[in-house]
Amino acid sequence: MSDLPKSVHILEVGPRDGLQIEPNFVPTADKIRMIEALADAGLPEIEAGSFVNPRAVPQMADGDEVFAGIRKKEGVAYRALWLNARGLERAIANGHVDVNGKLTMTCSETFIRRNTNRSIDDTLAEMPEWIARYKAAGVEVRTLGLMAAFGCNFEGYIPEAKVVELIARAEAVMADHDCKLKTLNLADTMGWASPMQVKRLVGLIRDRWPELRIKLHLHDTRGQAVANAVAAMEMGVTHFDASVGGLGGCPFAGHKGAAGNVSTEDLVFSCHEMGIETGIDLDALVEVARMAEGFVGHELPGKVMKGGTLNRYKTQH
Amino acid sequence: MSDLPKSVHILEVGPRDGLQIEPNFVPTADKIRMIEALADAGLPEIEAGSFVNPRAVPQMADGDEVFAGIRKKEGVAYRALWLNARGLERAIANGHVDVNGKLTMTCSETFIRRNTNRSIDDTLAEMPEWIARYKAAGVEVRTLGLMAAFGCNFEGYIPEAKVVELIARAEAVMADHDCKLKTLNLADTMGWASPMQVKRLVGLIRDRWPELRIKLHLHDTRGQAVANAVAAMEMGVTHFDASVGGLGGCPFAGHKGAAGNVSTEDLVFSCHEMGIETGIDLDALVEVARMAEGFVGHELPGKVMKGGTLNRYKTQH
Repeated sequence: MSDLPKSVHILEVGPRDGLQIEPNFVPTADKIRMIEALADAGLPEIEAGSFVNPRAVPQMADGDEVFAGIRKKEGVAYRALWLNARGLERAIANGHVDVNGKLTMTCSETFIRRNTNRSIDDTLAEMPEWIARYKAAGVEVRTLGLMAAFGCNFEGYIPEAKVVELIARAEAVMADHDCKLKTLNLADTMGWASPMQVKRLVGLIRDRWPELRIKLHLHDTRGQAVANAVAAMEMGVTHFDASVGGLGGCPFAGHKGAAGNVSTEDLVFSCHEMGIETGIDLDALVEVARMAEGFVGHELPGKVMKGGTLNRYKTQH
Repeated sequence: MSDLPKSVHILEVGPRDGLQIEPNFVPTADKIRMIEALADAGLPEIEAGSFVNPRAVPQMADGDEVFAGIRKKEGVAYRALWLNARGLERAIANGHVDVNGKLTMTCSETFIRRNTNRSIDDTLAEMPEWIARYKAAGVEVRTLGLMAAFGCNFEGYIPEAKVVELIARAEAVMADHDCKLKTLNLADTMGWASPMQVKRLVGLIRDRWPELRIKLHLHDTRGQAVANAVAAMEMGVTHFDASVGGLGGCPFAGHKGAAGNVSTEDLVFSCHEMGIETGIDLDALVEVARMAEGFVGHELPGKVMKGGTLNRYKTQH
């Protein structure tokens, strides 16, 4: 319990990671309203859209309009996703995206080949090109993202030693190109992580890289996301991705398993009840979750948005 | 992480605590099928029904038939709920109920008065009568249940010192009547608990009563139930109530906040992934959760029942 941080920083991914999986296209104006409401509720960083193939992800086809349309709030970073050089170019050209230099790797050889048609070695070999692209845009690369860092439906558990080895290899590539690894994003892409596994992996990484900022991206596929976040906070982790209302779960019965990210409100509730600051107004956030539920047209999995915050009871006493 | 137990014992409360809140009456034969399937999946203890006023809780009006109809499995305890002397008499007369001697208290003066029309002092004063009733039936009283042990919508947070004081007072009454307090049930009745609060309260109680078995009953009103259970397990807690599929959530929009217990599958998943034995076949349990979903006719909140277990992936490697 000793390493619990004083404050936690949440990157809201609902507008991108959440809405991209919805069967219906959420109109641009509604997306903008939701993003602005999230900023107003105190979210310091918001993944507002993506620059990917609009034929592959039609829900995100309005990335340019969304970023251009947002009333920007001072101090809030508006992030985007891109998967290739073209996407990065579009994000830079848009002019409204807070572009962060980030390299991405997947910890499962099978999954990375299926997803990207490249091996882990190929992906490492391509990192210098990405670093050069970012440099050309005046952006320093400081972040490494690791997908499937805990387990993979194709390869089973990912051994912690493998994750550590991948970080070391990517760090070496970065160092060869004058980039310092400062932030590590660990994603539990397929919902394999459990609290003790989180503690073990974070502990190993912290032992080797005590200065590295670790961020977790936790899916709630098996109901462990809040417990995993709490375990991480007990290990001193201060940065999390989260999705308002738990957006990102697939509403089709056949794909119900594709659960969303940890619900932002449920995570914020957890932080506040443990005395950890987030800078977020939980009641306002719950209103955004309800707004998002209206936009997608089906029940969202978040709990606090249904159970309510405790604030109304606390003020009575 | 050090006090994680080797095994955890789960009392399944879905057939009673879960089904009693459903708008529809689940037919007796379906209840029996569900209870038998739970026992076959490895649940060692099942709250199978209640002996309460059938006008107040018509969903549980068939308690006698349910208990008489279950094909009993060796080693499984079939529990019931009663709230007054008449209910206990009915449970004893039924002849199929594993009657456990239990005293109940609520940690909030306001809530206990609203719920039972009695004060905390009144409730303590009535304990000797309950002990005598159990004794007359040949049942030893060893268990104390504390409702609203973490917080109350009417009184806010329940101070830990107050919980400790109530335990001490009830223990003294029991001792005066030759009963030894062996098991303490702490219920987070209104979903106030957070992981660090669980650790603090359990720690305080363990310090004063190191031999006492602590059991937690956790509602998932604000998405913290699994995290709270994990926190408890880290403090050495080995006994939990849980509800298959997370049964117990109220499906009416206006009452969505009345979330169910921690989902049994999600808790079992958590245990198994942390190397803690439960004696439960998780895949079989998921099938029961799906069966229960069919009985109640609406989606249940459990996650593993949608995301699936990891067993099918693990066997590939």
